[in-house]
Amino acid sequence: MRILPWLFDGRIRHGSLSMTGPDGRTRTFAGPEPGPGVGIRIKDPSLDRNLLLNPELRLAEAYMDGTLEITAGSLGDFLTLYWLNSREMLRNPVFAGWSRLLRATQGLLQRNSVFRARRNAAHHYDIGNDLYRLFLDDDMQYSCAYFPTGRETLEQAQLAKKRHIAAKLVLRPGQRVLDIGCGWGGMAIYLAQVADVEVLGITLAEEQLRLARERAQAAGVADRVRFELLDYRGVEGEFDRIVSVGMFEHVGRDDFGTFFAALRDRMAPDGVALLHSILAMDPGIYSSPFIRKYIFPGGYVPRPSEALSAVEGAGLWLLDFEVWRRHYAFTLREWERRFLKNRERARALLDERFCRMWELYLAGFQRSFEMGSLAVMQLQFGRRRDAVPLTRDYLDREVRRLVAQESEAAA
Amino acid sequence: MRILPWLFDGRIRHGSLSMTGPDGRTRTFAGPEPGPGVGIRIKDPSLDRNLLLNPELRLAEAYMDGTLEITAGSLGDFLTLYWLNSREMLRNPVFAGWSRLLRATQGLLQRNSVFRARRNAAHHYDIGNDLYRLFLDDDMQYSCAYFPTGRETLEQAQLAKKRHIAAKLVLRPGQRVLDIGCGWGGMAIYLAQVADVEVLGITLAEEQLRLARERAQAAGVADRVRFELLDYRGVEGEFDRIVSVGMFEHVGRDDFGTFFAALRDRMAPDGVALLHSILAMDPGIYSSPFIRKYIFPGGYVPRPSEALSAVEGAGLWLLDFEVWRRHYAFTLREWERRFLKNRERARALLDERFCRMWELYLAGFQRSFEMGSLAVMQLQFGRRRDAVPLTRDYLDREVRRLVAQESEAAA
Repeated sequence: MRILPWLFDGRIRHGSLSMTGPDGRTRTFAGPEPGPGVGIRIKDPSLDRNLLLNPELRLAEAYMDGTLEITAGSLGDFLTLYWLNSREMLRNPVFAGWSRLLRATQGLLQRNSVFRARRNAAHHYDIGNDLYRLFLDDDMQYSCAYFPTGRETLEQAQLAKKRHIAAKLVLRPGQRVLDIGCGWGGMAIYLAQVADVEVLGITLAEEQLRLARERAQAAGVADRVRFELLDYRGVEGEFDRIVSVGMFEHVGRDDFGTFFAALRDRMAPDGVALLHSILAMDPGIYSSPFIRKYIFPGGYVPRPSEALSAVEGAGLWLLDFEVWRRHYAFTLREWERRFLKNRERARALLDERFCRMWELYLAGFQRSFEMGSLAVMQLQFGRRRDAVPLTRDYLDREVRRLVAQESEAAA
Repeated sequence: MRILPWLFDGRIRHGSLSMTGPDGRTRTFAGPEPGPGVGIRIKDPSLDRNLLLNPELRLAEAYMDGTLEITAGSLGDFLTLYWLNSREMLRNPVFAGWSRLLRATQGLLQRNSVFRARRNAAHHYDIGNDLYRLFLDDDMQYSCAYFPTGRETLEQAQLAKKRHIAAKLVLRPGQRVLDIGCGWGGMAIYLAQVADVEVLGITLAEEQLRLARERAQAAGVADRVRFELLDYRGVEGEFDRIVSVGMFEHVGRDDFGTFFAALRDRMAPDGVALLHSILAMDPGIYSSPFIRKYIFPGGYVPRPSEALSAVEGAGLWLLDFEVWRRHYAFTLREWERRFLKNRERARALLDERFCRMWELYLAGFQRSFEMGSLAVMQLQFGRRRDAVPLTRDYLDREVRRLVAQESEAAA
């Protein structure tokens, strides 16, 4: 084993890393700064030379295959160690070269046709609803929750998120609402429960569609909440409000203009839209090759400036731009905890390799929101500058109104 | 007179325009849509052929020189008519060509060296404090005020603006604050009155510096509020808080990166900055040649995406982005009203041509905020993602604290 030690040699300034090779020999690298102490064992001799071709991906795949084992500390510790020392690691010419290549190619040749968008969505969201039930909250909200104090339960925080978004939509009786990327229908059903509005929720995942329709029926709002298997480019009609939560990440950079133009075209003249999406603050960041290949093919996390450039280009008015930092780290920590608690059931549904892949995804993303440059943005925009009141003071009033409506709906 | 009628012929769809030439002949263009009825008289026969070279600038100069008179309606009506019909006007090949040229050249070759920045600032701000007293509020706030209801007096709205900004700075005792583009010192003095902080205010205009120093003395805060004649690139030391209100518009597009890098370098690791600036929502907008030549040489109004791109490039964290629409229209309406009330005194200070230029500036900008794509942004950013609390709820608490401090300071 020669490549792996060489990749880390002299790069660990925070914490320590011990690596044991297939031959049983151990090398340890330790830095002067505090950080986790992690041990890994490599069981497959072929990993070493493969590392030269995309080291991050190879290490991730070795973890998935079980040929890279964590022998001291946790997977989370290993990822934390990686982040803490990432600046040093990037001085290694192989890491440096691959990071440059990954940065240069991300978002390229990524035009997500309706067909390709459907395939990408199925890849992730049609894994099976039973899997998602194992780590999401009761309402199956698969996006960043809102933790005003950081001490909320996941259920409380997801409700707070829905309420926060509904407040920004300033719902009024009789309005038509479009929910792009409706997931399992939780947001659409909530909006219909707290306001006398009609909602059309669209998704590209059949599993989501099926469950969303069942849930609308069960909640007694099926007369006002419809769900369709539809691409955002295929929607017809005019909507007073448009909401899209955690879907823009799948649009792909080449289609940002198409996306905002579609929203503008579907929006009533005094309409309001709320887009909730992950952002990457650092223009030099690249999405992990593991995430690209295994988790979100076709996805692209926008820089704030890229999203705004598309808003401007569509002739829309930006009305508000909120930034949630850390909230997704809290959310992912809870998803990870629940997933690990239900790991045996996940393994029965899928397999060990899937579970290891999912652990890596949840733990890795969590660190990107804690230590990397990911955060969440809520962009509110409309066709007119006065689609919402003069100041943001109305948001508090809307929240209070929604809380009252929630109690009424529950009674 | 042939060019002027040709420019407007068939372009007036809203309202009506009558134009009387030097020979006394009148032509009238009227559209089917509602809009103001305006009459103008041209007194200088040479205007007509000059119109081919930059028509917007020539018309503005003719108004300044008094060779274009408004004979029916007001200057504001004329500008409103212009805005209402601007889309049609741009179909005239001369207007279309000039608008394309003005759009292509704006922000180019605009590198504002320290020397040039100083000269630009002197051009506008050293006209004389007596002039600014004629139309600004008591505190001489020369930037957009905050009108929560739209019915505030200018004095109330400017106080609300200072308070709103102070809340976003989350001031704590002992902090060092830098105010870039401090004007006549109102913001710096306010911050020192409501919080136990030290403030350094910098300006490039000697007239502002002189008065700001006098006012700090008079307010009894001169021990904690210093003012210097200094470029943002010349500041030394570290600051916990940085505020810049209505100055970024002078930076120039070529120096956006320099500006945010300077702020980052002057900011403490857990520092917070608040930038208040005009934005242009429409990427195709161009700044009026009149404004460029007579009012704000070297200035450039950023698109939101351009400002954010510079924030990202400097490695800073965007923490919040608020958009004020219409507030500047309210502010400018009140400045215009006060200026017109004091017009005789302004004419005694300067001259008739200056007064007509200033009227055009105030009335024209007002329409850009009412009908064009200008608005105001407040960008809050820092070096760390958690430089401010998890949610925006702290802002209300800060505002209440500030109101209490204001009463205490007044007592």
